[in-house]
Amino acid sequence: MLSRNQVKYINSLKLKKQREKYRQFIAEGSKIVLDLLDSGHHVCEIYATGDWIDQYSSSFQLKNIHPVQVTEDELSRVTALTTPSPVLSIVSIPETDAGPVSGRGKLILALDDIRDPGNLGTIIRIADWFGISSVVCSESTVDLYNPKVVQATMGSIARVPVHSVNLENFLSGLPPSLNIYGSFLEGENIYVMELHKEGIIIIGNESTGISDGVARFVTHRVHIPSFSTGRGSAGQAESLNASVATAVLCSEFKRRIL
Amino acid sequence: MLSRNQVKYINSLKLKKQREKYRQFIAEGSKIVLDLLDSGHHVCEIYATGDWIDQYSSSFQLKNIHPVQVTEDELSRVTALTTPSPVLSIVSIPETDAGPVSGRGKLILALDDIRDPGNLGTIIRIADWFGISSVVCSESTVDLYNPKVVQATMGSIARVPVHSVNLENFLSGLPPSLNIYGSFLEGENIYVMELHKEGIIIIGNESTGISDGVARFVTHRVHIPSFSTGRGSAGQAESLNASVATAVLCSEFKRRIL
Repeated sequence: MLSRNQVKYINSLKLKKQREKYRQFIAEGSKIVLDLLDSGHHVCEIYATGDWIDQYSSSFQLKNIHPVQVTEDELSRVTALTTPSPVLSIVSIPETDAGPVSGRGKLILALDDIRDPGNLGTIIRIADWFGISSVVCSESTVDLYNPKVVQATMGSIARVPVHSVNLENFLSGLPPSLNIYGSFLEGENIYVMELHKEGIIIIGNESTGISDGVARFVTHRVHIPSFSTGRGSAGQAESLNASVATAVLCSEFKRRIL
Repeated sequence: MLSRNQVKYINSLKLKKQREKYRQFIAEGSKIVLDLLDSGHHVCEIYATGDWIDQYSSSFQLKNIHPVQVTEDELSRVTALTTPSPVLSIVSIPETDAGPVSGRGKLILALDDIRDPGNLGTIIRIADWFGISSVVCSESTVDLYNPKVVQATMGSIARVPVHSVNLENFLSGLPPSLNIYGSFLEGENIYVMELHKEGIIIIGNESTGISDGVARFVTHRVHIPSFSTGRGSAGQAESLNASVATAVLCSEFKRRIL
């Protein structure tokens, strides 16, 4: 049973301002909730159908969590999804490390103003798959705890460390010998150039690419070549989606170390 | 000026049934409309702001198209986008080839039940970038002319031939020597196995992967290995998004022929 205040509070967490005030976010869907329970995250509340609670009791009993049993109808009043899932959780936003993120021995993604929640979530899922050490987001990047971002990570939010930083300050504080890769039209062909197994890969904004302020830190300009045949007079594909480009870049970096 | 009947007709094209009845679809956004004008597609109507008409008159004058000047407010009544663009067009659905799609000498994507419009659109954009000859969709795949699909192609719908087929019939009609690739957990590591420059790459459904009926035609089972470090006890990424997997596969096939 959901009280009116609970409904109001859960719905309020769809707004960034409220998430920041209460340091909590919503995570929905069985896989995402189980991944969060299984990680170091503090899951504060679980609202779920009786069936879900019966099926997954082993996942939360040891953690001394007592789910609130609710109906599907109640879940539909608080969900941020088009089709509500049988479980919704309220999770504490973890305190981020105060210290600087080091790039030594690691491959890190730095996101310069990614605006689309689906792109950010998908990029975090890609980072998880390709064993990226951490994701660093510019302050203008969409909020990690936006319900659409959480959903698109498909549980990877439980595993990938994500930091929100002033990106220019972050980059200026890195060791000068570190390789910083960024994608530009006039960059070197990613498939044939030398790539290092440690460094930073910068992913630019969906429309405008890497900003000038960030571009000046790039030490290696790379490019994913197009194989477009430009049928007829209709030109050719002008770009790849930001998350798709991220996947191709991560795949290319990681395949070399096999 | 948009008449009440025009508003009603344009909005009706958001439904597949109406698109099939009138054999027309909506395409919005300057880049997409210009790409369609520039391709072999028949653009029937353009509704645009005065500014857009002035700026792009050279793109439609030679084609004997007379745009209807409308206000932003009128566009907001017919748009399928969250933020309306200054131009909306009505485009004829092209007649698809009656003959079979041959895989000889070409790399083709076959989509087995892709349900998410964003995924289908992004896959077509990826196909365009990587010079894929054509995309073949199972009948259960989301409709190509769904406004969200058209939007996600970012204009690539103007260039990539897309066919809707009974996928099992299509695959059973191919030459027996043709390589048919499909992604499976137990497949061979895509980064080290031999890949041919012609063949079919099958992309499975977002949740259930490649269906059994289609899987029996696969001659080469492939797998994109995960580099996930499985931090803590939280396991690791279980899958890549369908369009992200498509990008990694296409990138890997095409980089070999450089």
